[in-house]
Amino acid sequence: MSDTQDFSVENLGQCKISNPIEYSLVAGDSLAGYVNDDERIVHDVARTAGAEPRSFTSGELLELAGPREKVYFPAKHVHAGIVTCGGLCPGLNDVIRAIVRCLWHQYGVRRISGIPFGYNGLLPEFNLTPIELNPDEVDDIHKIGGTILGSSRGGGERTEELVDAIQRMNINMLFTIGGDGTQKGALALAHEIERRNLKVAVIGIPKTIDNDLRFIQKSFGFDTAVAKATEAVVSAHTEAHSAIFGVGLVRLMGRESGFIAAHTALASHEANFCLIPEVPFEIDGPNGLLEHLHQRLRQRNHAVIIVAEGAGQEHLQSAEATDASGNKRLGDIGVYLKQRIIDYFDSLKVGVNLKYIDPSYTIRSAEAAPTDSVYCSRLGNNAVHAAMSGKTKTLIGLVNNHFVHLPIPIAVASRNYVDPESSLWRDVIEATQQPVSMKN
Amino acid sequence: MSDTQDFSVENLGQCKISNPIEYSLVAGDSLAGYVNDDERIVHDVARTAGAEPRSFTSGELLELAGPREKVYFPAKHVHAGIVTCGGLCPGLNDVIRAIVRCLWHQYGVRRISGIPFGYNGLLPEFNLTPIELNPDEVDDIHKIGGTILGSSRGGGERTEELVDAIQRMNINMLFTIGGDGTQKGALALAHEIERRNLKVAVIGIPKTIDNDLRFIQKSFGFDTAVAKATEAVVSAHTEAHSAIFGVGLVRLMGRESGFIAAHTALASHEANFCLIPEVPFEIDGPNGLLEHLHQRLRQRNHAVIIVAEGAGQEHLQSAEATDASGNKRLGDIGVYLKQRIIDYFDSLKVGVNLKYIDPSYTIRSAEAAPTDSVYCSRLGNNAVHAAMSGKTKTLIGLVNNHFVHLPIPIAVASRNYVDPESSLWRDVIEATQQPVSMKN
Amino acid sequence: MSDTQDFSVENLGQCKISNPIEYSLVAGDSLAGYVNDDERIVHDVARTAGAEPRSFTSGELLELAGPREKVYFPAKHVHAGIVTCGGLCPGLNDVIRAIVRCLWHQYGVRRISGIPFGYNGLLPEFNLTPIELNPDEVDDIHKIGGTILGSSRGGGERTEELVDAIQRMNINMLFTIGGDGTQKGALALAHEIERRNLKVAVIGIPKTIDNDLRFIQKSFGFDTAVAKATEAVVSAHTEAHSAIFGVGLVRLMGRESGFIAAHTALASHEANFCLIPEVPFEIDGPNGLLEHLHQRLRQRNHAVIIVAEGAGQEHLQSAEATDASGNKRLGDIGVYLKQRIIDYFDSLKVGVNLKYIDPSYTIRSAEAAPTDSVYCSRLGNNAVHAAMSGKTKTLIGLVNNHFVHLPIPIAVASRNYVDPESSLWRDVIEATQQPVSMKN
Amino acid sequence: MSDTQDFSVENLGQCKISNPIEYSLVAGDSLAGYVNDDERIVHDVARTAGAEPRSFTSGELLELAGPREKVYFPAKHVHAGIVTCGGLCPGLNDVIRAIVRCLWHQYGVRRISGIPFGYNGLLPEFNLTPIELNPDEVDDIHKIGGTILGSSRGGGERTEELVDAIQRMNINMLFTIGGDGTQKGALALAHEIERRNLKVAVIGIPKTIDNDLRFIQKSFGFDTAVAKATEAVVSAHTEAHSAIFGVGLVRLMGRESGFIAAHTALASHEANFCLIPEVPFEIDGPNGLLEHLHQRLRQRNHAVIIVAEGAGQEHLQSAEATDASGNKRLGDIGVYLKQRIIDYFDSLKVGVNLKYIDPSYTIRSAEAAPTDSVYCSRLGNNAVHAAMSGKTKTLIGLVNNHFVHLPIPIAVASRNYVDPESSLWRDVIEATQQPVSMKN
Repeated sequence: MSDTQDFSVENLGQCKISNPIEYSLVAGDSLAGYVNDDERIVHDVARTAGAEPRSFTSGELLELAGPREKVYFPAKHVHAGIVTCGGLCPGLNDVIRAIVRCLWHQYGVRRISGIPFGYNGLLPEFNLTPIELNPDEVDDIHKIGGTILGSSRGGGERTEELVDAIQRMNINMLFTIGGDGTQKGALALAHEIERRNLKVAVIGIPKTIDNDLRFIQKSFGFDTAVAKATEAVVSAHTEAHSAIFGVGLVRLMGRESGFIAAHTALASHEANFCLIPEVPFEIDGPNGLLEHLHQRLRQRNHAVIIVAEGAGQEHLQSAEATDASGNKRLGDIGVYLKQRIIDYFDSLKVGVNLKYIDPSYTIRSAEAAPTDSVYCSRLGNNAVHAAMSGKTKTLIGLVNNHFVHLPIPIAVASRNYVDPESSLWRDVIEATQQPVSMKN
Repeated sequence: MSDTQDFSVENLGQCKISNPIEYSLVAGDSLAGYVNDDERIVHDVARTAGAEPRSFTSGELLELAGPREKVYFPAKHVHAGIVTCGGLCPGLNDVIRAIVRCLWHQYGVRRISGIPFGYNGLLPEFNLTPIELNPDEVDDIHKIGGTILGSSRGGGERTEELVDAIQRMNINMLFTIGGDGTQKGALALAHEIERRNLKVAVIGIPKTIDNDLRFIQKSFGFDTAVAKATEAVVSAHTEAHSAIFGVGLVRLMGRESGFIAAHTALASHEANFCLIPEVPFEIDGPNGLLEHLHQRLRQRNHAVIIVAEGAGQEHLQSAEATDASGNKRLGDIGVYLKQRIIDYFDSLKVGVNLKYIDPSYTIRSAEAAPTDSVYCSRLGNNAVHAAMSGKTKTLIGLVNNHFVHLPIPIAVASRNYVDPESSLWRDVIEATQQPVSMKN
Repeated sequence: MSDTQDFSVENLGQCKISNPIEYSLVAGDSLAGYVNDDERIVHDVARTAGAEPRSFTSGELLELAGPREKVYFPAKHVHAGIVTCGGLCPGLNDVIRAIVRCLWHQYGVRRISGIPFGYNGLLPEFNLTPIELNPDEVDDIHKIGGTILGSSRGGGERTEELVDAIQRMNINMLFTIGGDGTQKGALALAHEIERRNLKVAVIGIPKTIDNDLRFIQKSFGFDTAVAKATEAVVSAHTEAHSAIFGVGLVRLMGRESGFIAAHTALASHEANFCLIPEVPFEIDGPNGLLEHLHQRLRQRNHAVIIVAEGAGQEHLQSAEATDASGNKRLGDIGVYLKQRIIDYFDSLKVGVNLKYIDPSYTIRSAEAAPTDSVYCSRLGNNAVHAAMSGKTKTLIGLVNNHFVHLPIPIAVASRNYVDPESSLWRDVIEATQQPVSMKN
Repeated sequence: MSDTQDFSVENLGQCKISNPIEYSLVAGDSLAGYVNDDERIVHDVARTAGAEPRSFTSGELLELAGPREKVYFPAKHVHAGIVTCGGLCPGLNDVIRAIVRCLWHQYGVRRISGIPFGYNGLLPEFNLTPIELNPDEVDDIHKIGGTILGSSRGGGERTEELVDAIQRMNINMLFTIGGDGTQKGALALAHEIERRNLKVAVIGIPKTIDNDLRFIQKSFGFDTAVAKATEAVVSAHTEAHSAIFGVGLVRLMGRESGFIAAHTALASHEANFCLIPEVPFEIDGPNGLLEHLHQRLRQRNHAVIIVAEGAGQEHLQSAEATDASGNKRLGDIGVYLKQRIIDYFDSLKVGVNLKYIDPSYTIRSAEAAPTDSVYCSRLGNNAVHAAMSGKTKTLIGLVNNHFVHLPIPIAVASRNYVDPESSLWRDVIEATQQPVSMKN
């Protein structure tokens, strides 16, 4: 993960509202520990001993998040908007709660509007009324999953109409909680806002339950997702262990990155195979999954398989290609593997008891586990500090255990993947005892 | 946390068994991703933008943990010992399990002894029999708290007798799971081993539920401890909220560092005061705890206080000094504050309903939460890789999200404290809304 | 438990508002399954085969609870009051929620007042404002422990002032959720209400976390209490098991009845001694607790003891008698046993590691487990049906799996105890393997 | 539920091993509270006040379970077998554990064999080795779900071969833990055993996660199942609540009886429709599900539907009938309703966000919740008492809160259903606010 990404202003542009009038803080004077704009964090910490020592360029450093001694917006002029977009993720309400409380208590902001149901909530045709937010309103929302604002997909591409709405509502601070697409939308909004010469801070809190965001060390909700997914694997193990030639097959989230699957394999200690998008595998042949599964069953009578939803897509495509009978396409790799396993052992006249578990929505709708709840609170607070100090086009992220400002363009430029050479995957191999390679 | 600690060999000495005969690995040839000895990690990531760029010295870099291509010990000659010392901590069994499995499966080691009940288990007068360990024996132990080996305090200072036992048992690889004192003992063992010219790798896995170990980003068991402590605070809040002038007072672990208290305040979202050793506070006077508590009760009718066991020790000493009647000293700050609060409101003729909760052992005896379970597995695996490659006098730690080798001397040199100027404490202040300072 | 209690009208008096004008139900016409006043339930089901068959007298039958076809109160005239008294118990909010929803949805009642902080909330000197309740207000309250109305002890003896307040507020339906004292107070209220010739239904939902109410099969919150107490015993077992001569000592609720202790011993499967008020035990001597504990430790190295707070009171009294130095009395049996065990093994020069756990408020403040939540909903619904049909001086209870009307006088007449000859205690003896008797 | 079932010996035959030689108990002399064979429990407790009092006939009374003063089998001659059959159910391991411990500790039995993988484990072609059981072996098994013996379907109909195996292994006490089919098989075994004049006690512990066994008040595992199902409904509610026109659809177990669905509706407090096999419903038309769902969405924006797997089968059949294209039959009512709802709103051009959750195996594989764990222990103990005293062809059940002997023939004669006129269903209607009838 030795990135050569250049975080410098020259490369990414200014992530601050242009007109630098700043007010000294009154309501928030109880704040401890102001942060200066020149405090930075090294992003890439890998080095080679004995190599020629080299200096850090500005492009390797990220701005430290936190409250600034001078704020850009006077509290009584602030109208903040908060929007949650895309699929659910544990911790959304914790982030909302922290934003509202920090604005209210630390800065004295009194106008905070929740945009209902994602970006669509700003579009006229949905005719939705913003939700007035205050500390009482959000006091207990961390105890429930989901988002009290509601969420939806789409709408973010209608930049001009969204900025029209922002202008109409007099919102001058927008917090966008969402994934890749949401933050790309936020960036477009910020550009249009600049074009119209408005003074609106756009701050994103990146959301990806798959933990596939590069540059940050962990996305919020991920710990909770792994904890819930682990419960599903324990169920699968119990079923497999209690049957003659029992096979538990669990499908987990992970479209392009297998972090949930990998961590769940480690946390559950019960999986014998962990299949992820980053590590292709054969199903058939002497070194394929089916043969290894058969060996495992002969030795231990039961087996548990975790498969990330994005794993083995090449098999699905070929399956689709060869299936010419007009039946509808195979739904997913989980269902596909289930059928392939059953067929394989049928053909061998070996009875297996396969139990298929897809925990699906029960994972993403969970309330945040304590570590995630702490993380979300701190993301929300730092988002508020960023907005109040006039930052814009910025995400809040955790890098090397420090909260930093991450320019939106870099966050949407590339994804994070499980590196098959990494210590994480090495530890998964140790935990599952699966072959390092299942290629013939 | 801008440390000027020098991790260089010149400063800390060689952390490797002296005789560098190395075998190429056979049993573990399935291992992916070997690590080279020159792969390093930057420890201190804080920098100032615009400051004169400076190069890293070797003293700022930590060796990356992981399997080496060549091992020092041939598997069939290995007799590994594992010992757990001191108080319980969530995840002990997960670490033991990982060590046993990694030795067995990845390296083919077949002689693994669990030392019963800490260092004392090696002393002749206890007459205890080592526990033979193998993957079957440890298969399910991650599901229970505590340590299957048993633990105890003390014994680690009897260096010569311990090395006698190690020699007698032919142990050539010792894994010490324990706190400060345990690792100091391990260092003394390693020095005596060197003096006797034995080839024994001593690898420590640092254990501190208080998270007060400097140089690593988080100690194992900490997430679980916070999760359990949060449950106690939720109880306190429920009691306080259901009573007229209800006060919930929760005493948490934290002798010298208030990390559990601080994180629990954030995770629970229900504490109004968080008292830690690092931030002194007055009890009496216009800016003291009692007056602020009274204000809070007048405004909101109820209040929740978290107090770390090491907080406010100055009050206990003065209390002890003024109490001349010969009664035994006050047990702890929790009990002391409880009495002071009751007396104060009695003196004002205001009835309060104080509920005191000390979750004590229910926190440290919990089974590891999923995030800790993953962390412990990986600590154990990396400890095995270190020992097999002939490292010694080394702890395994997580630094900037990489597992590293941490020379024992530096780990026992200084502690980690909550910095009152840090973003962590700032976020606690936001969460509790307590005064930044309670000094008159 | 072969009661000879006489439930007949002749014995207990009329539990119905005297003036029998009844309205036919309009709002609630969607109700299924009306119940007739002559539907009864046999209370005592034990019989002897071959004995002379005997008929049931009216005094052996309890009235079945449920909606009546005709109601006494027209919905628009109803002003319902709900009060929660005494210590917290899991499920209080579930009962409140059910009462509010059933009144509102099934009967169309629109005036429902929550009395704050117990009976005291009706007394003028507290100057408290009733809480207006409706389905939206109570929608999520089952997710939290405690009582949203608040609770307090006392006040129930000031009958005349309470009825003054009821009259002043025009309350004609009072739901009293509380223990023995609360329901005695409710009975006094009902008598004073009759004396003043008011038409007010007084319906009680009995609350006793100790499950010590005779005539009903289980009190609400009990399952949850056992589940939480079991967690404490698991902690104690982990601590004991991980130490040399480890002893885990857990103090549980149970002033006069040991049901929580007994069920927790069964549910945890880890206790070796279960001490309850109903079964006296010696501490010293050849058949005393200390000697048996010593034996257990010699055989198995560790032991877990559950002690109900009301157990072994005779030892505390004698201790108090012999302690003539003027120190204040011993706090409780838990602390006392802890000291006795430590002293005993000190005197034998045997080191024990005793860990004392008092889960206290964490048990009673828990949110209701699903079984309790279901039970509470149904108690609340049946309380509403009783009140609407003009019943009064009546508790709602579950008897032989049917919800029934239980006249208050019988509920406050006697308690329920663990019978040392019962199958419950027999199963506890099997689970703990403790001696049937610890009397010398 | 006013059964006229006749439990009398004349009707059901002798449930005792014929040759009445009995030994007085030696090993178990520590047992408290012996039970006499003439102690009985009234089954049906419903009565009508004022009706002619009538006596109990022997046919209305059930024999009380528990230890008898004289046992039929001397402990040293006992070889006990335990078999678990059919699908998993929370608590299986708790029952096994109790049987082993009670046999061993209370009666001194030392030969206990676990039959692997159901009745099939006794058939020669599977060539499976029995598992030797003792208290150490089962000490921690209550902490995991499933059955340590393994389970499977079928085999129970091969009566003669099974009795051959029982004879070959010298088993004289067989504990059959399983459902309807298992107990029918057990009855056939007992008859064949009688025919061969063998002295083998056959005692069943009825297992049905659906709680559809008549004559007992609750089947083991049911509380746990409801608790787990409730989690799925909470997820569905979170998803529904966070989306525009969000619909959460949860499919739960319940082939012929809707108890899990009904209790989960009550426990979750979040379902708006609960569909069970016992209450037919229309999907289309002015009073059908779709129209009511639409109304609910218009009023509250979101909705949650629970559907038991056996509900609405008439719709599936008609669907199957009209589908003549040769596609395979519709999988289940959950998938069918999902499609119907989507199609309906598509046809109205109303976008709904439907999230479908099928918690499936995660429910039945859960470890037992504390209430179930207690229940299972006591079932197991009473099964042992029954077998030791020479009972046979008998199930252990809980009736009116007493453990009783239930002759197998009556348990397999009829099922238990949710009565649409019962107070349970009435309370579900109150909780969901769904129409009492959805028939046009």
